[in-house]
Amino acid sequence: MSRRGSQTFAYDCAPVIAARASIAGPKEGKGPLGDEFDVVLEDDLLGMKSWELAEGEMVRRAVELTAQRANLSLDQLQLMISGDLNNQIIASSFAARALGVPFFGQYGACSTFVQSLVLGAALICGGFLENAICCASSHFCTAERQFRFPLEMGTQRPPQASWTATACGCALLARGGSGHGLRVTSGTVGRVVDLQIKDANHMGAAMAPAVYDTIAAHLADMGRTPADYDLIATGDLGWIGRNLLVELFRRGGVDMPDARLIDCGNSLFYQEQDAHAGGSGCGCVAAVSCGWLMKRIESGELRRVLIAGSGAMLSPTSTQQGESIPSISYAVCIEGGDA
Amino acid sequence: MSRRGSQTFAYDCAPVIAARASIAGPKEGKGPLGDEFDVVLEDDLLGMKSWELAEGEMVRRAVELTAQRANLSLDQLQLMISGDLNNQIIASSFAARALGVPFFGQYGACSTFVQSLVLGAALICGGFLENAICCASSHFCTAERQFRFPLEMGTQRPPQASWTATACGCALLARGGSGHGLRVTSGTVGRVVDLQIKDANHMGAAMAPAVYDTIAAHLADMGRTPADYDLIATGDLGWIGRNLLVELFRRGGVDMPDARLIDCGNSLFYQEQDAHAGGSGCGCVAAVSCGWLMKRIESGELRRVLIAGSGAMLSPTSTQQGESIPSISYAVCIEGGDA
Repeated sequence: MSRRGSQTFAYDCAPVIAARASIAGPKEGKGPLGDEFDVVLEDDLLGMKSWELAEGEMVRRAVELTAQRANLSLDQLQLMISGDLNNQIIASSFAARALGVPFFGQYGACSTFVQSLVLGAALICGGFLENAICCASSHFCTAERQFRFPLEMGTQRPPQASWTATACGCALLARGGSGHGLRVTSGTVGRVVDLQIKDANHMGAAMAPAVYDTIAAHLADMGRTPADYDLIATGDLGWIGRNLLVELFRRGGVDMPDARLIDCGNSLFYQEQDAHAGGSGCGCVAAVSCGWLMKRIESGELRRVLIAGSGAMLSPTSTQQGESIPSISYAVCIEGGDA
Repeated sequence: MSRRGSQTFAYDCAPVIAARASIAGPKEGKGPLGDEFDVVLEDDLLGMKSWELAEGEMVRRAVELTAQRANLSLDQLQLMISGDLNNQIIASSFAARALGVPFFGQYGACSTFVQSLVLGAALICGGFLENAICCASSHFCTAERQFRFPLEMGTQRPPQASWTATACGCALLARGGSGHGLRVTSGTVGRVVDLQIKDANHMGAAMAPAVYDTIAAHLADMGRTPADYDLIATGDLGWIGRNLLVELFRRGGVDMPDARLIDCGNSLFYQEQDAHAGGSGCGCVAAVSCGWLMKRIESGELRRVLIAGSGAMLSPTSTQQGESIPSISYAVCIEGGDA
């Protein structure tokens, strides 16, 4: 439990990801990672009467599955740290109501999952918890009607628009120790960065500078270079945002090998799936991390991965008022192999 | 840094509230606590072109004033933990953009200020930070048009409606030590409780059971009774919610002396000010705590105070969909005198 540099927490106790779950919607299940998710929904309403309730139900199921896998009852979960894109994070709070677990509601837009991990690991290493559920969700239909247009209008989406994933990822952090497993070793808290992008459909461009700011802070705070990571995964910049990030690294004089930098939003869909700029939403980086990236670390294919979640902190109101889009990014370092 | 019982963090390092600021709107300034606030606004637009920007500006000013009083530059603030009622917490994130301080966005509705203190104190005692800004704001005009009706409609408010305060409170937590000052000694994380209140104007009734749940958990976890506190301040239940809380304590067999239980929302306005059920909003408990309660602890009038913030986790969408109102409460214990 210590602080490194100006923005990074080093988790000397290295909490482990004791269990995890990922749920993806029907379209996400047809993408390249379809087989990696624990559950692929057949119907994005999950039998509920609204998409908002469906998203909450997805969160509830993901937490229950995670607890089950860790052989814990819901009573044994000490804290749930979670958020989503809905106004007043109703998916998370409705799930927390059903689960009865002490709850910290977070809002970091699409960075929420990583924000939750950064916070949960700190509370565990600080000695306050034995375990913490870290979770985030998004749903195409709840996000689209809230941030853009009612789906029924069939509004044409511009090419720079990303596709909010219907997905949820959930990780159970627990006090570590020696042994084999996925360990959370450091986390970096972002600052709000805004380079005056005002197009609410152009979130990759709005968020890329925040991601650059946080990854650069992480590397400086830890005294590392990109070569110290097997993979740096952003979530979610999409195709356009990733190219802008590469350009920002080039201008900043950071050597970022192309093969080492992936984006969760780009990994979620085939280009033929018409997701335009790529996947986005809190659930995208959460499900891709829990379903795919962590599996690759667990298998030994990757040893040290930096996941940099990024969020566009716009609201429907700020967009209508013509405001630019403040963005933020959090980064978490996850390592495999023996402690 | 330890855990007590099922929901409470005991802060063995007892972080101090090193500085604080409170800002209140014109109507709030005319209430019984008008003289207690650091700044009373003459105009609730603060020279900005929208109420949302005005609320963000109020947050920015409160953080700057707090930093100034602590003799810290903005660069020396290590973390800002903050939230508000606006969709996607834009008041806090727009302020964080202007301030450049690493940022954790929180959402606990009107409980956000206490949630931030519970979290900030844990991160300091965990060894991750030397200081943390904990903040929350609300604005009557942003909340009214978002959750109820456009102000221009002049819609009549039912008597059980509370009045969202235009206010902001900000506290700088710092690593303590011995000596004189305001110390944060424990914090309790709430669970989401919902007794099926569906009237979005009846938030006191929706939140009272959550406040009861959290205060009862705090007392059990700490092995205390209400007699161990000079004051228990809820924020904000209003007149109706406070009466319901008293009834819940009676039914639960908890002896809660009437004079020991106050509500920030009831303290903010005179009844003649036509605020119906009383004040509410994240900024109410934040400004009343920073402006008034902490002053009373500092002066020695009160020695140990429990502040229980409460939030109604409804959204405009969930209200329109006829959902009931999940509520949550966080409690923080603040003590004065010598450590």
